[in-house]
Amino acid sequence: MDERGALALLDAELEAVGDDAAVIDGLVVTTDMLHDRTDFPEGTTRYTAGWRSVAASLSDVAAMGATATAAVAAYAAPAFDREELLAFVRGASDVCEAVDAEYVGGDLDEHQEFTVATTAIGRTGAGGDGTDPVPRSGARPGDRVCVTGTLGRSAAALEMFERASDASAGDSSAADLRERANDLFRFEPRVAAGRALAPHATAMMDSSDGLARSLHQLSEASDCGFAIDGDRVPIDDAVRDVADDEAAALELATTFGEDFELVATVPEDELAAVREAADVPVTEIGTVLEREEGITLDGEPLADEGYTHG
Amino acid sequence: MDERGALALLDAELEAVGDDAAVIDGLVVTTDMLHDRTDFPEGTTRYTAGWRSVAASLSDVAAMGATATAAVAAYAAPAFDREELLAFVRGASDVCEAVDAEYVGGDLDEHQEFTVATTAIGRTGAGGDGTDPVPRSGARPGDRVCVTGTLGRSAAALEMFERASDASAGDSSAADLRERANDLFRFEPRVAAGRALAPHATAMMDSSDGLARSLHQLSEASDCGFAIDGDRVPIDDAVRDVADDEAAALELATTFGEDFELVATVPEDELAAVREAADVPVTEIGTVLEREEGITLDGEPLADEGYTHG
Repeated sequence: MDERGALALLDAELEAVGDDAAVIDGLVVTTDMLHDRTDFPEGTTRYTAGWRSVAASLSDVAAMGATATAAVAAYAAPAFDREELLAFVRGASDVCEAVDAEYVGGDLDEHQEFTVATTAIGRTGAGGDGTDPVPRSGARPGDRVCVTGTLGRSAAALEMFERASDASAGDSSAADLRERANDLFRFEPRVAAGRALAPHATAMMDSSDGLARSLHQLSEASDCGFAIDGDRVPIDDAVRDVADDEAAALELATTFGEDFELVATVPEDELAAVREAADVPVTEIGTVLEREEGITLDGEPLADEGYTHG
Repeated sequence: MDERGALALLDAELEAVGDDAAVIDGLVVTTDMLHDRTDFPEGTTRYTAGWRSVAASLSDVAAMGATATAAVAAYAAPAFDREELLAFVRGASDVCEAVDAEYVGGDLDEHQEFTVATTAIGRTGAGGDGTDPVPRSGARPGDRVCVTGTLGRSAAALEMFERASDASAGDSSAADLRERANDLFRFEPRVAAGRALAPHATAMMDSSDGLARSLHQLSEASDCGFAIDGDRVPIDDAVRDVADDEAAALELATTFGEDFELVATVPEDELAAVREAADVPVTEIGTVLEREEGITLDGEPLADEGYTHG
C-alpha cells in the first residue's frame, strides 16, 4: 500500500479526520512528520528546518480558516548540538510569532536520521469567532478559483539547493544560492489570509501537494470541474530564475507543490471583500465548472500530478 | 549534549514550556516521539504500539490534572501494511476512548525505522472546570506522597519480551509471554485519577522516568526532600514474576520507569477525599521533607537513577 492509499484508509477509519486538519470541540488539530532525506535538502539550515516544519502544520490550520493557537515539535537527531537545537527552536518560534501563535516546545529523541514531527492547534467555530471551518467540499460551478501569494517557491528553492551542492566547494555562489534557497523555504503560513477567506470561501485547502493535485482533490470533494487560466497563475519570480522558459516555469508552479499557499473557491461577488480583508495578494486564476467538464489548464486537461509527501 | 541537557536547554529557552505539558490559553499540549529500537521491543504488536504511544502523551495531560480532549499520531514505517496500520489506529483509538478523548488521526511518513510521534491535547483552567494545572513546584513539608496504580509493569513487560525472544521458536510459552507483555505495555493513562487529584495535589507529575527520578524532579521543582517507605510502594504482581527477590522487585519498581502512573503530593487531611474521588487505588508511600533532609528510601539515600528516554 502506498502512502496515498494508506492515508485514504485512515480517512475512512476515523470520523473526526477532517480535510487539512481534524476538527474537534472547537479545535483544529494537525500533525506532520518530515525527515532528512526528502524534506530537508543539503544546505537547509536548522533555523529554516524549524521554521518550515512548524509552518507546514500551521498551513493546515490556515487551510481550515482557523486562528492558530500553538505548535509543538518533536525533534529527533543522531546527536544534540546546542547551536543547531537553538537555531531550530528560534525558527519554530519565529514562524509561530509571525502568525500570532505560540511555540510551546516539544520532545527530543535520539534517532539515526534527522526527523521532525510537528503539531499545530487552532480554533474555529465555538472556540474562535463563530466561523465554521472551511471544507473542501463546497465549491459550486461559477465560483472563482483563487490562490494566495505565489507558486513555485519550493520548486525554485530545491533547484537552488541542488545547484549549490553541485558547485565546487570554494565557489562563493554556492553560499549565495543556499541563502536564497533557505529564504524561499521559509514560507509564511497563510493564517491571516485563511481568516480573510473563511467567511467567503466555499471550499479551501493548501497547495502543499501542488496546484494540480489540489484541484483534483477539491474536484473530488466538491464534485466539480475547473478551468484554470495559465496566464493568471502567480508564478514566483524565483521560478523564472531556474526554469528554462515560461512553459517550464508554469509547469513547476502548477505541479511541484510544497508551497503551502491557499487554494480557495469564492463566489464572484465576494472577491472584492476577500481581497480587501487579506494581507497578501489573492489571485483569481480560473472558474469552477461542472464535474463532467473536467479540470483544464488553458483548455488542456490538467493531470493529477504533483508532489506525494514522502 | 545529552538528551537531558538538551531538554533543560529547551526549558530555559521557551516560556510556555510547562512541566509535563505546555499550558496555553486553557489548553494543555504535549508531544512525544517513540521509535523501534528503544520503545517497541520485539514482540510489541502494532495495536499495543498505537495504544502505548498515544497513552504516553495522554499521561502528560493526566499529570497536569487536565481533561483529555484529543490525540493525533504521525506514523512512520518503511512500508504501510494495511493490517498493521489498522491495528495501530485501533490501539490509538481505544486508549483515547478509555479516557474520554478522541483519536483524530495524523500523518504518515515513509521512514527506515518504525517511528511514532504523538500529540495529546487537554483542557484545564479556563477551558476546563476552573481547576488550574497542577505544577511540580508546590510540594510542602508534611504533605503525603502518593502514587496511582502499581509500579514496575513496564520493567516486567520488557523482561517478558526479552525472555520470549530468547525462547526457541517452537516454544509455546514465548507466545504467552508476549501476550502478557503486550497486556502490561498497554497502560491506562491516569486522566480520571489526575482529575481527582488536581483539586488537592500540591505537586504532581507522571512516573515515566521512574519513581526515583520523578522524586528528584519534584524535589528540584518544589525545593523539598522526601522519605519513602519501601514497604508501601505498590509493586505490580508481574514484577515479582520476573524479579529474583523482593529487593530486586522494589529496585525495578522504583527505578525502571516507563510506568506512567501519577506521583503526587497531597496534604494529609485531603487524602480521604482524593481516594474517594479516584477511580484507581491511590497509595500513600511517604512524606515530604525539607530539602536538606534529602530523598530517602527506607532511610537510605535514593539515587537519581532511572530511565532516560531515548
